[in-house]
Amino acid sequence: MKSSIPAATVARLPVYLRCLGDLFVSQGTCSSEELAAIAGVNSAQVRKDLSFLGSPGVRGVGYNVLDLSRELRVALGLTKGYSVAIIGIGNLGRALSNYKGFGDWGFEVAALFDADPDKVGTAVGEFSVESMDDLEQIVKERNVSIGIVTVPADAAQYVADRLVETGIRSILNFAPIVLQVSDNVSVRRVDLSTELPILTFLLQQSVE
Amino acid sequence: MKSSIPAATVARLPVYLRCLGDLFVSQGTCSSEELAAIAGVNSAQVRKDLSFLGSPGVRGVGYNVLDLSRELRVALGLTKGYSVAIIGIGNLGRALSNYKGFGDWGFEVAALFDADPDKVGTAVGEFSVESMDDLEQIVKERNVSIGIVTVPADAAQYVADRLVETGIRSILNFAPIVLQVSDNVSVRRVDLSTELPILTFLLQQSVE
Repeated sequence: MKSSIPAATVARLPVYLRCLGDLFVSQGTCSSEELAAIAGVNSAQVRKDLSFLGSPGVRGVGYNVLDLSRELRVALGLTKGYSVAIIGIGNLGRALSNYKGFGDWGFEVAALFDADPDKVGTAVGEFSVESMDDLEQIVKERNVSIGIVTVPADAAQYVADRLVETGIRSILNFAPIVLQVSDNVSVRRVDLSTELPILTFLLQQSVE
Repeated sequence: MKSSIPAATVARLPVYLRCLGDLFVSQGTCSSEELAAIAGVNSAQVRKDLSFLGSPGVRGVGYNVLDLSRELRVALGLTKGYSVAIIGIGNLGRALSNYKGFGDWGFEVAALFDADPDKVGTAVGEFSVESMDDLEQIVKERNVSIGIVTVPADAAQYVADRLVETGIRSILNFAPIVLQVSDNVSVRRVDLSTELPILTFLLQQSVE
């Protein structure tokens, strides 16, 4: 059944899960309208998206917040932990190395890598930066299943290729380029500026 | 007409614009299927979203990449520049202070602020970190219209309140909390971990 969830719905499920986490825990239920308002989509979309999960909301009552959170976690594969490696220890790599949001969802940073010999061996939080020469070995030893790419654009494809060679099939890319990977590798790109034009759209509306 | 674009569509328009930028410039036209594939939505959604803009695609030919980019910029209010201030100069604030993606869309970082007296006056790239005491004055002098909040969660609401007091009506929030603001203020939250569960969903599918 899971494989029949449309990709666009899958992309919204983490947003719903995060929004449910933001609701007061004391709030036992949540209507599709409430969830839609926090998530920034319309309520019909919320109901349609959530209809792909196991249990529907109850008309006039809404969704049980804890049950729905659990179902979202199951659907998204968040019932077990995942080890991630961060490649590229500039400011963004450092910021992500202690980003609390990862831990909330069961992601554990297991290793930091950089190609710069001056950075290798230096401490970043509780980690020591590892050399790219040791990528294959450490990824296997620490059971890393997701690579987070925070290198400059011109190094990102090389890093992605190296990750794929080690057997990694999931890449989160913060570099501003489109990575070319084979069909059995999943890449999600994070563009830190995507939300800004939504603000300018609203700003423009307010002055018209 | 612009105000009739649904919020969910507005949120996807920057994604389309970014995807068009990723296409080879030599590619004159782009089908809704191509754009859908890069953007990670379905092609019917792309056609529906783009129908809210001025000119439709041509059946069998697709959209002119440059024309569509221009229309997206106009719809999103990206035809003029905006000055942004970053508040909270930790690793993430530093990373954003020289993030190339902002400049691509006409956003210029105009000031960096931090509450830590040890950071005030230090250099970050071409900037000198400013004191929060000078927030009002500098925001006005440098015509800042968007505040980017990269402080820890427990300081974010205070910072948002200070920004709103100075007259700022657009806030990009990287802190992991929901900010409470009045109706005339727009807040977009960036959750750096939202894409990870999409990868685990796909990872789970591939092993089932």
